[in-house]
Amino acid sequence: MPPPRRPQDHSDLNLQQIINDLDNGALYDARGHLHSLYPTEIALVLRSLPMDYRYQLWSIMAPEAMGETLAALHGEVRIGLIEHTSGADLVAAASQLEPRDMANLVADFSAEVRDKVLRKAGDSRLEAALSYEGNTAGGLMSSYFMPVRGDVTVDETLAYLREQKNVPANLDSLVVVARNNRYLGKVSVATILTSDSSATISKLMTRVEAIPINMPIAEVATIFEHRNILSAAVVDEQEVVVGRITIEDVLEVVREEVGHAMLSSAGLDEEHDLFAPVLVSAKRRAVWLGVNLFTAFLASWVIGLFEATIDQIVALAVLMPVVASMGGIAGSQTLTLVIRGLALHQISSSNAMSFLFKEMSIGAVNGVVWSIVVAMIAAAWFSNGPLGMMLGGAMIINLSCAAIAGVLIPLFLHKKGIDPALAGGVLLTTVTDVIGFMSFLGLATIFLLV
Amino acid sequence: MPPPRRPQDHSDLNLQQIINDLDNGALYDARGHLHSLYPTEIALVLRSLPMDYRYQLWSIMAPEAMGETLAALHGEVRIGLIEHTSGADLVAAASQLEPRDMANLVADFSAEVRDKVLRKAGDSRLEAALSYEGNTAGGLMSSYFMPVRGDVTVDETLAYLREQKNVPANLDSLVVVARNNRYLGKVSVATILTSDSSATISKLMTRVEAIPINMPIAEVATIFEHRNILSAAVVDEQEVVVGRITIEDVLEVVREEVGHAMLSSAGLDEEHDLFAPVLVSAKRRAVWLGVNLFTAFLASWVIGLFEATIDQIVALAVLMPVVASMGGIAGSQTLTLVIRGLALHQISSSNAMSFLFKEMSIGAVNGVVWSIVVAMIAAAWFSNGPLGMMLGGAMIINLSCAAIAGVLIPLFLHKKGIDPALAGGVLLTTVTDVIGFMSFLGLATIFLLV
Repeated sequence: MPPPRRPQDHSDLNLQQIINDLDNGALYDARGHLHSLYPTEIALVLRSLPMDYRYQLWSIMAPEAMGETLAALHGEVRIGLIEHTSGADLVAAASQLEPRDMANLVADFSAEVRDKVLRKAGDSRLEAALSYEGNTAGGLMSSYFMPVRGDVTVDETLAYLREQKNVPANLDSLVVVARNNRYLGKVSVATILTSDSSATISKLMTRVEAIPINMPIAEVATIFEHRNILSAAVVDEQEVVVGRITIEDVLEVVREEVGHAMLSSAGLDEEHDLFAPVLVSAKRRAVWLGVNLFTAFLASWVIGLFEATIDQIVALAVLMPVVASMGGIAGSQTLTLVIRGLALHQISSSNAMSFLFKEMSIGAVNGVVWSIVVAMIAAAWFSNGPLGMMLGGAMIINLSCAAIAGVLIPLFLHKKGIDPALAGGVLLTTVTDVIGFMSFLGLATIFLLV
Repeated sequence: MPPPRRPQDHSDLNLQQIINDLDNGALYDARGHLHSLYPTEIALVLRSLPMDYRYQLWSIMAPEAMGETLAALHGEVRIGLIEHTSGADLVAAASQLEPRDMANLVADFSAEVRDKVLRKAGDSRLEAALSYEGNTAGGLMSSYFMPVRGDVTVDETLAYLREQKNVPANLDSLVVVARNNRYLGKVSVATILTSDSSATISKLMTRVEAIPINMPIAEVATIFEHRNILSAAVVDEQEVVVGRITIEDVLEVVREEVGHAMLSSAGLDEEHDLFAPVLVSAKRRAVWLGVNLFTAFLASWVIGLFEATIDQIVALAVLMPVVASMGGIAGSQTLTLVIRGLALHQISSSNAMSFLFKEMSIGAVNGVVWSIVVAMIAAAWFSNGPLGMMLGGAMIINLSCAAIAGVLIPLFLHKKGIDPALAGGVLLTTVTDVIGFMSFLGLATIFLLV
C-alpha cells in the first residue's frame, strides 16, 4: 500500500520554481532550470502548466531538447506544442529520435513536415515502425536490438560487442538468432560475463518464447510482470526477430492503463489537456453529463409513476434517496472489484459464478443488517412503523440487485469488448436508481395506501 | 490507450484448466500444470480461486515452489495459505528467499516459526531488512548488489565478475564504491563490455545520485520513470551503499498504486481476499455503507426541511434527484482529474488556482447549457414554466459548487495526508446532494409557493 505523498517533492518543486521564474520574467533562469531536467520531467512540467506559461516556456527551449520532450508527451498537449514550433525545428527534433519514437511523433505532424522527416531519415526501420499498430507489441517495440548468432563463442561475442558504437546503456541480454535473424532464444549479459570464454552462445542461452508482433500491449505487460524479465525479443509471423521490448516501455503501459481505467470511469480521457480551453473541455464533459441526464430522467420518470402515492405520503420523498444511494454504493463496491479483477485476470468465466454467489450473499447480509437500521431510524423519525418496514424491504431488494448488477454488467461489457470502466458506473447507477425508487415507492403503494 | 483485453488470454486459460482438473479430481494434472507456471502466475491462480479450491491446490504443491509463491502474494490470501502450511514447510520455503522477501514473508509467520527461520538464516542482511520501513526505499530494495571499486580496471572487473557465483540474471549495471562501500556512481554493463580493457572504472562510471534509504516508494517510482533507469543504488545517511532497487520492484509499486487508488475510492482494500468468507467481507463493506448512510440521511434531512413545500408541489419530489445526480457527476469528473493530477504531480499548489478557475468556468458553462435543457424538459413535462426555471437555476448553482468542491476537497485531503481517493467521493457527494436538494427545494419554496 503506497504511503500518502509528501506534500512537496521534486516534481512539485520544479514546477513551482519555473512558474516563479516566468512570473518574474527571469526567462534565462527558467531555461536553465528546464535544461537541468530529464526530458520526461520537462514533459511533466509542460503538461502541468496553463497554456500561456507552457508556450512561453516552449519558445525559450533549446531545439535540441525538443525531440525527446515531444516523444515523452502525447495527445493534445503534444499537438499544441507542435503547432507552436517551426517546421525546421520539428524536422531537427524528430531526426534525433529512434525509429519507434519518430514514427509515433511524426503521426502528429502536418503531411508536409512529416515527408521532410521521412526523406531525411530514409530508414527502412522507420517505414516498418510506421506500419505497426499502436496497441500491439509492434507499436511498443524498438527496432533496435543486438542479435548474436548461436554458433559463436563468448569471446567472439565480446569482440563483436566491443566493435559496436551504439550499445544501449540498458542492455541486459542479447537476442540469439539463427540465419536470417530467425529467433532462437536469449542470453543474459550476466551469463556472458561469467561464462568460459570458449563456451558457445547456444549452450548458454535460454529458450524463452519471443513475443509475437501482434500481441496486445496489455498482454505484453502481463508477461513482463509474471516472468520478471527486463527485455524480450519481438518476432513476426515467420519467427524472424523484428525488435525488442524493454521493461521501461512496459512501465509506461502499466502507468497509462491505470490512469485510463480511473479517468474513463468519469468519462474522461488521458489524451486531453488538463489546461485545454474552457469551451473545449466543457463540450467534452457535456457529453458525459448528457448521458447521465438521460439516466437521471429515467429515475425521475419512475418516481413520476408514483406521484399519487407521494402526494399522500410526503415522507416517501424524503426517504427515497436513501434506498437509491445505498444501492449505488453497494453496487459500485462490487463493480470496482470486478473491473479490477478483470484487468488483473483475477476474475474470468471460470470463477465468475463463485464470485457472483459470494457477492449476492454479501448483498443479502448487508441488505438485512442495514435495512433494520434504516427501518428503525425512519420509523422513529416519522413515527410510522410500516413506513420503516417498507424502506427496509426496499433496501434488501436493492442491495441484492446491486450485487447482481455489479457482477454481471462489467462481465457483459467485457465480453462485448466495451471497456467496463467507461460504461459500468452509469449502467449500474441506472439499475440501482430505478430498482431503488421502484421497490420503495412500489411497496409503499401496495401496503401503505388504503 | 490500452486496447480492450481479449476475452481469453494466458492467465484465464491457466485458471480454467486448473479448476477443470480439480473438478475432475485430476490432482496430478493440476499439480503438473501448476508447476509449469512462474511463481507470480501461481500466485495469481491461487488469488483467483475460491477458498476450497485454493487450499486443495496448495496441499498438493511441491514445497520447493512455496517460497517464491508466498513472496508473490500478500494480505489475507497469503496469511490464509500460511495457516494451511506446516511449520517445517514454512521454514524451508522462507529459507530459499533473498533477505528482503524473507523479511517481508516472516512478518506474517507465527513468532515460533519466524524465530526458526531467523536462526536458520543467521544473516545480518536479513536483520537489516527486517528493520526497514515497508513504504520506503529500504523496504523495497534488495540487499544484494555487486559493488566494484572505482580504482580497478575493466579487465579486473571482468575477472571479478567471473569469480562470482550468483550474478543476477537481470544485471544491467554495477555499483561503484570507494572504501567502506561509500557510494561513488554506477557503471553500466554495456559500458564495461565495450570499453578498453585497461580503462579504470572511475573513468567510465556516471555520477548519478543514489536513492536515500528513507525515500518514500512512490517517489522512487517517479525517479525510475523520469530517468529511464533499470536499477539504482540505495544509500544510508552516511552515503554507504546498503542495497539496490530494480525496475521490476518499481513496476510492482506502480501496479499496486494504481489498484490502490481505484479500490480505495469504493472503500475497498487490496490486502483483502476476493474470496474471503461472506460474513468477513460483509462486515468490511458494511463500514463503508454506514459512512454513506450517514450522508444519505443528511440529504434526507435537507429534503425533510422542505416537506411542506413538497406536499404542495409533488413534482419537486420527482425532479429533485436530477439536480443532485448531475452535480455529483460533474463534481466527480473534476475530482477524478485532481486525484489523478496529484498522483502524477501534474497538479500542485503552484497551479491549483489556475486549475480551480478553469473548472469553475467549465461548471458554469455546463451549468447554463444543461439547465436550459433540463428546464425545458421539466416545464414541458409538468406544463409548469416556473418549475422548470427553478430546476435550471438549481442546476447552475449545483454544478458551479460541484466544480469548486471537486478541486478543493482532494487538495485539502492531500494536504492533511488523507488519501483523496478514499474519502474524496463521499465528501463530494455529500456536498452535491445537500446543495442540490437545498437549492432546488429552496428556490421552489421562495418563488413557487404562494
